[in-house]
Amino acid sequence: MTSLRVVYYSADQDEDRWIPGLQAALPGAEVLLWEPGASLADYAVVWKPPQQMLDEQIGLKALFNTGAGVDALMQLRLPPGLPVIRLDDAGMSVQMAEYVCHAVIRHFRELDGYEHDMALGKWSFRKPRSRLDYPVGILGLGVLGERVAKAVAQFDFPVNGWSRSPKAVEGVQCFHGDAQLADFLAASRILVCLLPLTPETEGIVNATNLAHLRSGGHIINVARGAHVVDADLLAAIDGGHVAGATLDVFRVEPLPQGHPYWNHPKITVTPHTSARTLRSESIAQIVLKIGALERGEAVAGRVDAARGY
Amino acid sequence: MTSLRVVYYSADQDEDRWIPGLQAALPGAEVLLWEPGASLADYAVVWKPPQQMLDEQIGLKALFNTGAGVDALMQLRLPPGLPVIRLDDAGMSVQMAEYVCHAVIRHFRELDGYEHDMALGKWSFRKPRSRLDYPVGILGLGVLGERVAKAVAQFDFPVNGWSRSPKAVEGVQCFHGDAQLADFLAASRILVCLLPLTPETEGIVNATNLAHLRSGGHIINVARGAHVVDADLLAAIDGGHVAGATLDVFRVEPLPQGHPYWNHPKITVTPHTSARTLRSESIAQIVLKIGALERGEAVAGRVDAARGY
Repeated sequence: MTSLRVVYYSADQDEDRWIPGLQAALPGAEVLLWEPGASLADYAVVWKPPQQMLDEQIGLKALFNTGAGVDALMQLRLPPGLPVIRLDDAGMSVQMAEYVCHAVIRHFRELDGYEHDMALGKWSFRKPRSRLDYPVGILGLGVLGERVAKAVAQFDFPVNGWSRSPKAVEGVQCFHGDAQLADFLAASRILVCLLPLTPETEGIVNATNLAHLRSGGHIINVARGAHVVDADLLAAIDGGHVAGATLDVFRVEPLPQGHPYWNHPKITVTPHTSARTLRSESIAQIVLKIGALERGEAVAGRVDAARGY
Repeated sequence: MTSLRVVYYSADQDEDRWIPGLQAALPGAEVLLWEPGASLADYAVVWKPPQQMLDEQIGLKALFNTGAGVDALMQLRLPPGLPVIRLDDAGMSVQMAEYVCHAVIRHFRELDGYEHDMALGKWSFRKPRSRLDYPVGILGLGVLGERVAKAVAQFDFPVNGWSRSPKAVEGVQCFHGDAQLADFLAASRILVCLLPLTPETEGIVNATNLAHLRSGGHIINVARGAHVVDADLLAAIDGGHVAGATLDVFRVEPLPQGHPYWNHPKITVTPHTSARTLRSESIAQIVLKIGALERGEAVAGRVDAARGY
C-alpha cells in the first residue's frame, strides 16, 4: 500500500493516539491530520468531521467512521457516491452485551433494591420474579442488536427483536416494520434501544410507544439520546407504567446540569460509556478494509445513505 | 405412585406452600409435614432438618435436599446407605449465571464507579480496561460452576476453573486438586467461589490463597460464608491487593449488625439471594426423581457422603 494517503480527523481531538496507530498499521502509507487546506487523500478516517473537510477532500475512495453510529455524518453534505463505512464491531458488541445484560439483570433481579436495603442495614426478602414475565425487546437487530439479543437469551429471558426490514435471529421472536411495532412492544416488558438514529427512528421511545409496552418494565437506551422523548419517558416512569430506565446516551452530552435525569430515583445514568470505540481493534479493522478496497473487494459496514445507516 | 408417603420439613417453615405443591404433583401419594412421632415415610424432602427427624424416619428410600448445598445435612448423622439427593439445577444455575455475570461486569466495567460519579453530578471518564487483563477464575465446576463459567466466557473473558477432580469444560482452562490451586489463582484476577462446603474447602478464601491471585481483582462468593476467612479478605481489600468483593453468603446469616462487611465501601453485600430455590421447578424435579427411583433407575444429584457433596 505504498503511496496511499490517509487523512484523520476527530472532534474528540484524539489524533495523538490514532495517527501513530494508523501509521504503524499502514507502514507504506502517509497518515496525516486533516486541517483546512490539507493535501488530498485516498481515505479519510473521521469522527464528527466538519463540512469543510468533506468539501475539500474530493476524490476520496472511502470514508471510515470511527463509531457504529453515523447519524452525525448523515447531517452533512457528502460527495455523491462516496462510500461511507462504519465500524461493524471492533470490540463494541461485547461491550454492548455486557452493559445491557448488566442492566437487565440488575432490574429483573432487583439487585439495586437489595443493595439499597443492605446499605440501610436491612437484610431483606423480595419475592423472586419469573423470567417468563420479563420478555426483553430489542429495538434494532444490526451487529450490536443481534449480539445483545443472543446474550440476553442466554439467561433464558424470552427475547423479541424489531428491525426495519425482516430479520431472522435464532432464539429471538422477530418483528419488523411500522406495522409490527405495536405488537413487538406489547410482547415486551424490558425495552432496549439499539437502533441507528435516522429521521424515522428519532423520538421512537415516545408516549404512544411506551403505552404499548407491558407495564412495570424498564427502558435501556444505549443508542442515541434523540431516540427518547425525555418528557414522555419521565411521565411514563412518574406515572408508574414504566418502572425505571438505564440511560447511557442523551440529547445533549454531557447531560446538562439540572436535567431531571440526574438523581431521578428510578433512572440510572452513565456517561455514554456502554460501548467505547477500542482504538487498536478499530484500526485493525480499518486497515483490513482499506486492503480489501484496494483489491477491489466489497467490505462490510457500508452505509446506505438513503436509509441513513 | 399410590401408597407412597412423603414427609416434608424445612427450617424455613415454608410448608404451607411446599406441601400443597408436592401433593398436587404426586396425586396418589400422601404428603405430610414432619413432626416428632410422624408416620414413617418412603421419601423425605428437607431443608436443614433436625437430627430427630433422621433418627425417627427409618426406612426412607431417599432423602431430597431442597437446595444445591448439602453442608448442613452433612453435619448430621445420616442412616448408613440412605441415598441423599440434592437439586442439580431446578432453575438455580441460570440465577447463579446472572448474579455472577452482573458482579463481574459491574466490577470490570466500573459501572458502580460511574453510577457513583453520576450521583455526584459528575460526567466522568475512565480508561477502558482490557478483558484479557481480567481472567475470571471459578472455584468449583459442578452444575452451577460450569453454567457460570460458560456465561462469563460468553463475554470474552478468559475463564479458568478449578475442581477437586479433573474436569473438562469447553472454553475453560481447567485446573484440579491441591497441587494446581496456586497456579489457578495466579492465572485469575476475578475469583468466584461456587464450591460445595466441605472440611477441605472451608476457609479456602484465606490470606495464603488470596495472595496468589493477580492483584487488583474482585472476589465473588455465592457458595457458603464459611468458604471465606473474613479477616483475611478484609485485610486483602484494605491492604489493596484485592480491589473489592461481592458477597451473597456469610458465616452467620442474616449478617450480624456491626459486621465490617456492612457498609464497607469496596464490598457489595446481598442477602443470600444469588440463587433461590424455585419451588415449582424443584418440586417437578423431585417428583421426576421419585418416579425414576420407584422404577429402579439411577438419578442425578446423589450425594457422596465420603466427599461431602
